[in-house]
Order: sequence, then structure tokens, then C-alpha cells
Amino acid sequence: MELIKTIRQMQDWSEAKRVQGQRIGFVPTMGFLHEGHLSLMRYARGQSDHLVASIFVNPLQFGPKEDLAQYPRDLDRDLAMMQTIPVDAVFHPEPEEMYPPGYQTRVEVTEVTRGLCGAFRPGHFTGVATVVLKLFNIVRPHLAVFGEKDYQQLVTIKRMARDLDLDLTVEGRPTLREPDGLAMSSRNVYLSPDERRSALALSESLRLAQEMVTAGRRDAAEILTAVRERIESRPHNKVQYAALVDPAGLEAVTGIDNRAVLALAVFTGRTRLIDNAVLTAP
Amino acid sequence: MELIKTIRQMQDWSEAKRVQGQRIGFVPTMGFLHEGHLSLMRYARGQSDHLVASIFVNPLQFGPKEDLAQYPRDLDRDLAMMQTIPVDAVFHPEPEEMYPPGYQTRVEVTEVTRGLCGAFRPGHFTGVATVVLKLFNIVRPHLAVFGEKDYQQLVTIKRMARDLDLDLTVEGRPTLREPDGLAMSSRNVYLSPDERRSALALSESLRLAQEMVTAGRRDAAEILTAVRERIESRPHNKVQYAALVDPAGLEAVTGIDNRAVLALAVFTGRTRLIDNAVLTAP
Repeated sequence: MELIKTIRQMQDWSEAKRVQGQRIGFVPTMGFLHEGHLSLMRYARGQSDHLVASIFVNPLQFGPKEDLAQYPRDLDRDLAMMQTIPVDAVFHPEPEEMYPPGYQTRVEVTEVTRGLCGAFRPGHFTGVATVVLKLFNIVRPHLAVFGEKDYQQLVTIKRMARDLDLDLTVEGRPTLREPDGLAMSSRNVYLSPDERRSALALSESLRLAQEMVTAGRRDAAEILTAVRERIESRPHNKVQYAALVDPAGLEAVTGIDNRAVLALAVFTGRTRLIDNAVLTAP
Repeated sequence: MELIKTIRQMQDWSEAKRVQGQRIGFVPTMGFLHEGHLSLMRYARGQSDHLVASIFVNPLQFGPKEDLAQYPRDLDRDLAMMQTIPVDAVFHPEPEEMYPPGYQTRVEVTEVTRGLCGAFRPGHFTGVATVVLKLFNIVRPHLAVFGEKDYQQLVTIKRMARDLDLDLTVEGRPTLREPDGLAMSSRNVYLSPDERRSALALSESLRLAQEMVTAGRRDAAEILTAVRERIESRPHNKVQYAALVDPAGLEAVTGIDNRAVLALAVFTGRTRLIDNAVLTAP
């Protein structure tokens, strides 16, 4: 497994594979890996001749009051976990390599980033789209794999890739969960034991919503009220948003015809958690 | 010479050359070609195994009150001119191919686009950066060549290519001029014979400015006043801006130490003309 720190070296590595007609799979991460990341890597490895993963905590996607400084990092642990896949090349640049002095280019996906997290994290998805485009240009993958837990991010990146005519496939893979249902996230480490129990309300409320739909409820407002009540019935929890949206364009829906995504952002104590599920009407 | 209308076909054409290790040169244009375009194509051809040129009048870079609808077009004439180079592939997509329904991604280069034309054409350089990035992703050139007449455009595209880690070279080539000094431009066709004479004041004022610098004048305000006076001494002419800027970052300079770019935008009648020159202190 090669650890690559510079853009030039990473581009040369990939170009050497591409001219041999070999397929490159790619999983971008912010490190502090969990089983969810590893499942993406295993999937991408199975679809490619070579697997690249990146570890880069991207300053551009954090707001001024967000957790950039304390975002958890453990490179040695991450590398050991990647070795088990195995990953062929780990791209791990310094922030100055990605954003040198004079840097001034932004990629904005305008519509799908308007609601949900985009409404509460101004600039976040511009930061995400920009760094992911840079990483795509550096790694030049044939396939890039992202988790569905960050559903709006996945839709944004798919949209960007299509709009900018990137010659690669962007694929989303299912959220991995702890045995009790909590969606895996690097940020779960912030939770106290007591908050950890309250955080279960997110996945519980997703199941509750699907049960309501299965039982014939179709009204978005009714479902969202039940979801909010379930989440805030636990201590520490404050719903930032709970929304039912179209799976493709992320526009809010008033009722569930067929499929809709229920997307949640919840503060459990000071930790912001997100989760989502596709609800399907039988 | 192949005429290619779809993104998929163009990407496949280029990929077939790239896997053979062959170099692709690229000259993007909005068509209605003149000798300036052809000189870029001849240069790119000499640097590459294959030459691609595009013809696309990009709606995204025109303001609502600008000349998108009447921008001059003559595909047959353009193709005949390209045949003389010869160009190997002409990419000529419809607007719907480039911006299908749902399209929503924008590339913004923030600092070098602030002044000069950027101050008077809001969104113009975002439109330019976006379409050029798309074209780069579609054509996948090793070398892309642009005219120095659109100096701010050239700086913007170089900056974008560097910031987004595009693995290609962006090169600027000197402005071609009519025998009397008028910078070649597709928009010169808008000028009446009388306006055509007045338009000479642009290149004359660039020469005047260099003469002042050669004669020891260094103060930007003094030079710009003389430039404006020379241009507006002719009928039909109204200066939109005349600026002395740093050649790399395009920041305004107050004096000429070594090299500075004198950039002009002038309305001659209803036609907006631009021109520029690098002034060098002896």
C-alpha cells in the first residue's frame, strides 16, 4: 500500500494504470474510518483493478463555527484498517497542497444543495463539490463510491459529475449501522454514553415513518410530526430538520406517492447527527 | 476532419487517442473564425498529434442584455477554414447537449474575475470557466490554446486549471491584428465603416501608452488619462474601462515598475471592443 502526499505523484500513479487500460476505484474519506468506509472500499475494490482511497479533512466544507479543529483524526489506525482491504494507494495531502496561496476556484451545484443540510450549512456543499472535483482530477478514477448516509452529498456529487461531463461512475452504497441501529459516523465518537442512547431515536424514527407508510399513511406533515416527536421525546435531542423529499431532485414532497427520502439532522447534545431512509409505499 | 456533435462521441474519440499515448491539442472557439483563431490552431497543431477545435456559442457567458442572439455564426465558412489547418475533429454541440434540463453546476474563479470585464459583465467569467471546464472534460486535451486578446479570460482559465488540478497545459498566444492595428475579433463585423475608423483608437492608445513608458512616464493615472483622451477624441467611442494591472493577479497598479498590462474595454457605437498590451519599462 502506497502513501501518496502530492498531487503530481498521485496523478502519475493513476496515469500509469490508465494507460495500461486498468480500472481505478476510488473512495474519498475524511479519515477516522469505521466499518461504513471499509464497506465502500471493499465494494470499490471488487469493481476495479486498483483501489485508491483518500484521507483529507477538507477545510473548505466546514463553516466557521463547525468542528474542523476537533474533527477526529488517527492516521495510523486508518492506514492499518485500509491495509486489511487492501487499498493500493492512499492519497493523504496536506491542506496547503490542496489549497496553496492564491487558490480561488469554487464549484457550486445550485439546486439540490438548497434545502436540507445546505440550508443550515452555507457553503458546505460548495466545499464538498470543489474538493471532490479536485480529488477526481487528481485520482482520475473510473468509479467513485460514496455512502448513502450523506444522501444530499451523494446527489450533489452525482449531479456535478453529470453536469461537468466527468467520464466516471459515481455510486452510492447503503449506510452501515451499529447493531442497535445508529448510523455509523466518525462523529459518533463525540457522544457521551447518555447521548449515545438518545441518538438511537434517529434510526427508530426512520423505522416508525416506514411503518406509518406501510400502514397507509401518506401525508408528509403527519409523518414528519410523528418523527419529530419521537426524536425529541429523548433527552439531549433537538431536531434541526426532518424532511420528506424527492429522491432525485430533493424537492420537498407533501405526500408519499411511491418513494420519498426521509432526511434528518438532529443535535444530540452538541453533536450534529444526520440519517436518512428511502420510504416506499407498498 | 470529423464533425462531432455529442459529448459521448467526443470523449470516446479522445480516449482512443489517449490510450495510444498520443497528444491532443485543443482550441475552443465561439465560431465565426478569423485569422486569430487560425493562428491558435496552427500553433496547437504543431504541438500535438491530434488537433480538436470546438465551435460553441456558450449561452452561459452572455448577460441578459448582451449579444447572444445576434452573435455572428457561419458554420460552413468555419469548417472550410478549419480544413485548411487541418483540424482533425470539430466539436460542435447544441446548447441542449451542453446544458440539458436539470443542469445546475457553476465554476467560479473568484479573485482574478473581480475587476476589468468581470466588473461590467456579472456572471460572464463563471460562464466561461464552466464551459471551458466542461470542454476540457469532454475533449481531454494535453494542451489548450487561447488568445491573449481576452487576457482576463486567459488568466481565469489558467487559474481554474491550476486550482482544479487539471492535468493539461493552458497556453496564451499573441493577439493577431488587422494591418492597421485593430485587434481581430468576431465582433468587428458589427462595426460600420465610420466606427471601424474610430475603433483604431484602441490599438493606437496602447502604442501611445508604451511610448509614454519608454519615455520614462511611470504613473498609472497619468498614462490612463492620456489613453482615455486618445480613445474618446474619436467619434462613437466611449471608454468602459482603461486599467493598468499586474499581469498575473490582475490587481490594479499605481505605477509601472517592470511590466503591467494595459487593458481596455470601449464601446464604439453599440459594439463593445476589448484590447490589451503588456507595457514594459525599459
